[in-house]
Amino acid sequence: MTEELKERFLAGDRRALARAITLVESGHPAGAELLKSLRGRRRAQVVGLTGSPGSGKSTLADRLIEEARRAGETVAVLAVDPSSPFTGGAVLGDRIRMMRHYQDEGVFIRSMASRGALGGLAGATVAALSLLEAFGFDWVFIETVGVGQSEVDIARVADTTVLVLTPAAGDAVQAFKAGVMEIADLIVVNKFDLPGGPRLVEELKATLELAPPHPSGWQVPILTTVASRGEGVAEVLEAIRAHRAHLEEKGLLEPHRLDRARFEIQAVIQEWGRRLAEGAEPLLRQVESGEKSPEEAARELLRNPDSPA
Amino acid sequence: MTEELKERFLAGDRRALARAITLVESGHPAGAELLKSLRGRRRAQVVGLTGSPGSGKSTLADRLIEEARRAGETVAVLAVDPSSPFTGGAVLGDRIRMMRHYQDEGVFIRSMASRGALGGLAGATVAALSLLEAFGFDWVFIETVGVGQSEVDIARVADTTVLVLTPAAGDAVQAFKAGVMEIADLIVVNKFDLPGGPRLVEELKATLELAPPHPSGWQVPILTTVASRGEGVAEVLEAIRAHRAHLEEKGLLEPHRLDRARFEIQAVIQEWGRRLAEGAEPLLRQVESGEKSPEEAARELLRNPDSPA
Repeated sequence: MTEELKERFLAGDRRALARAITLVESGHPAGAELLKSLRGRRRAQVVGLTGSPGSGKSTLADRLIEEARRAGETVAVLAVDPSSPFTGGAVLGDRIRMMRHYQDEGVFIRSMASRGALGGLAGATVAALSLLEAFGFDWVFIETVGVGQSEVDIARVADTTVLVLTPAAGDAVQAFKAGVMEIADLIVVNKFDLPGGPRLVEELKATLELAPPHPSGWQVPILTTVASRGEGVAEVLEAIRAHRAHLEEKGLLEPHRLDRARFEIQAVIQEWGRRLAEGAEPLLRQVESGEKSPEEAARELLRNPDSPA
Repeated sequence: MTEELKERFLAGDRRALARAITLVESGHPAGAELLKSLRGRRRAQVVGLTGSPGSGKSTLADRLIEEARRAGETVAVLAVDPSSPFTGGAVLGDRIRMMRHYQDEGVFIRSMASRGALGGLAGATVAALSLLEAFGFDWVFIETVGVGQSEVDIARVADTTVLVLTPAAGDAVQAFKAGVMEIADLIVVNKFDLPGGPRLVEELKATLELAPPHPSGWQVPILTTVASRGEGVAEVLEAIRAHRAHLEEKGLLEPHRLDRARFEIQAVIQEWGRRLAEGAEPLLRQVESGEKSPEEAARELLRNPDSPA
C-alpha cells in the first residue's frame, strides 16, 4: 500500500498527500515508512506565522497565498490548533476565508491538532511539514494560535518567523511578556488602520532598540498591513524573501536546519515518553508513593521490550 | 554533603530548601538523590494560578498568602517564568508586591524559568514542587505567566487550577481560544471594579453552560475579586478548599496524583531527549539529509552508553 501511495504522492496527487499526512498524524507505521523514503527531497521556504488570536494571521496568510500564487509559486498552509474540543469551532471560523483557495491546485491547506501531552508543536506537525516539503511546495506557512510554547517551537522549524500584532490594547505587551517578541524575524502590525497603529510601531521600534541585536546581524523590520484589503502584503512577502537571502548569504540556513533536525529528534523522544507513560498504572503508583523516582520509572519504561526506544 | 543538607532540610531550614531547589534546577545529581530520599513525605495542597499577564495573578497570590497565614497555614509560591532574558524584568516587576512576605518564616517564594526546549512546565519545576511539599508547607501556589502549554501542564500537577481573568477586552476570548478555559476548576474575575465586570461574569456563565460538564460533577464557580484591595479573596480560598473536599469525597485525589506521577515521568524523558540531542552534530546532519529518520536517531541517542536512559 505504501508503494502505491508513494507513487501517487510523487506524481503530485494531492489526495495522496492528504492521506500521507493522516497516516503520519495517526502514528501509523506506514506513515513513518513513507516519510523516511521521501526524506531529503527538496526543501520549501518555511514561514511561521504567529501572534495572538484576532491578530488577523489567517487573513494575512490568505493574502500571502494570493501574492505567492501571482508569482507562480505553490503554497501549503499548516494550521496548528490547540487540541481542544472546546475551541475547534472558533479557530476554524477564523480560517474560512482561506478556503477560497481550496479549488486552486497550487494551494494546499491542512489543520492539525497540536496535541502533545507536554509540548507545543507535536512531532506529527513536523512530520507533516516534511511531507509538504517533499511534495514540492515552494512555500509552507505554519500558522499557530495563541501565544505560548508552540510559538517558540515554530521558530525552530521555520526559516523565517513572522510575528503578527495589532494596535489592539495589550497585544504587544502580551507578546512581549510571553517571550515571543525575541523569536520574530519580522514584525507585522496588521489592522494598521485601527487607532493606535503608528504609536504601536514607535513602541516596537523602541523595544527592538533595547533588545540584544540578532546574532546574525539581521535587523528585524517592522511592517504595516491592512490584510483584509491586501495593503502592505506584497512588502511582507518581499521582507520574507530578504530574510531568507540573508540566511543564505551568512551561511545560516544550514545551522538552522540542524536545529530543526534536533527539534525533530526531541519531539520523537517526547512523544515516546508520552505514549510509554500512558498506561503503566503500577509504576505510576510506585512513583506517587515515592518508592521509585521518576527517573527510575522513565528508565524502566524506555527499556521495556515493547518500547519504541 | 547531601546528608547534611537533608538534615538541615528536615529541620526546617529554609536556606537548605533554597539550596536543594537550586541543586535540582541545575540538574546536579545530589539534587536528584536528595529528592529521592525525601519522596513520599506529606503532601501540600497544590494550587495552580493561571491567566494572562496583567490579570493580577501575583496580587491575588499575595492576598491568598495573607489569608492562609491568617488561618495559621504555611505557604510556598513557585513562580514559573518563560525562560527569556528579554522578559525577566517585566515579570519580576509584577511580583514585587509578594516580596513583603519574605520576612515571614511561614512563606517561601521562588521564581523558576520554565526552560524546556519543547515543553511548558519543565521537570525541574515539578521536582521543586516535590521539595516544597516534603518541606511541609500547607499550601503550594504555582503561578505561570502567559496563556499556553505551561497553563495546561499546571492542571496536571495542581490539585486545583484557578483561572484569573479581568474585564479587559479580549482576556476571556484569549483564554477561551487557547483552550485554558476547560482546565479551570475555579474562575476568578479579578479587577471586578473595572467596567464590564458583570457582563464578563454573564458571558462566562453562558460559556460554562455550553461546555461539557466536569466529569466529576464539579460545578466550576465564578468568583469576583478586587485583589488589590483584598476584596473577595477569602471567598476564593474557601472555594479552593471546597474543590479539594470535593476531590477527596469523590475519591479523585488519587487518580489525579497518578496523573501527576505520569507527568513527572514524561517530563524526565522529555528532558533527557532535550539534553541528548543538544550536541550530536553528525547525527543531526544525517537526519537533516534524510539518511536517518528522527526515530532512528532518537533510538541511537537513548541507547548510547552515556545516555541517562
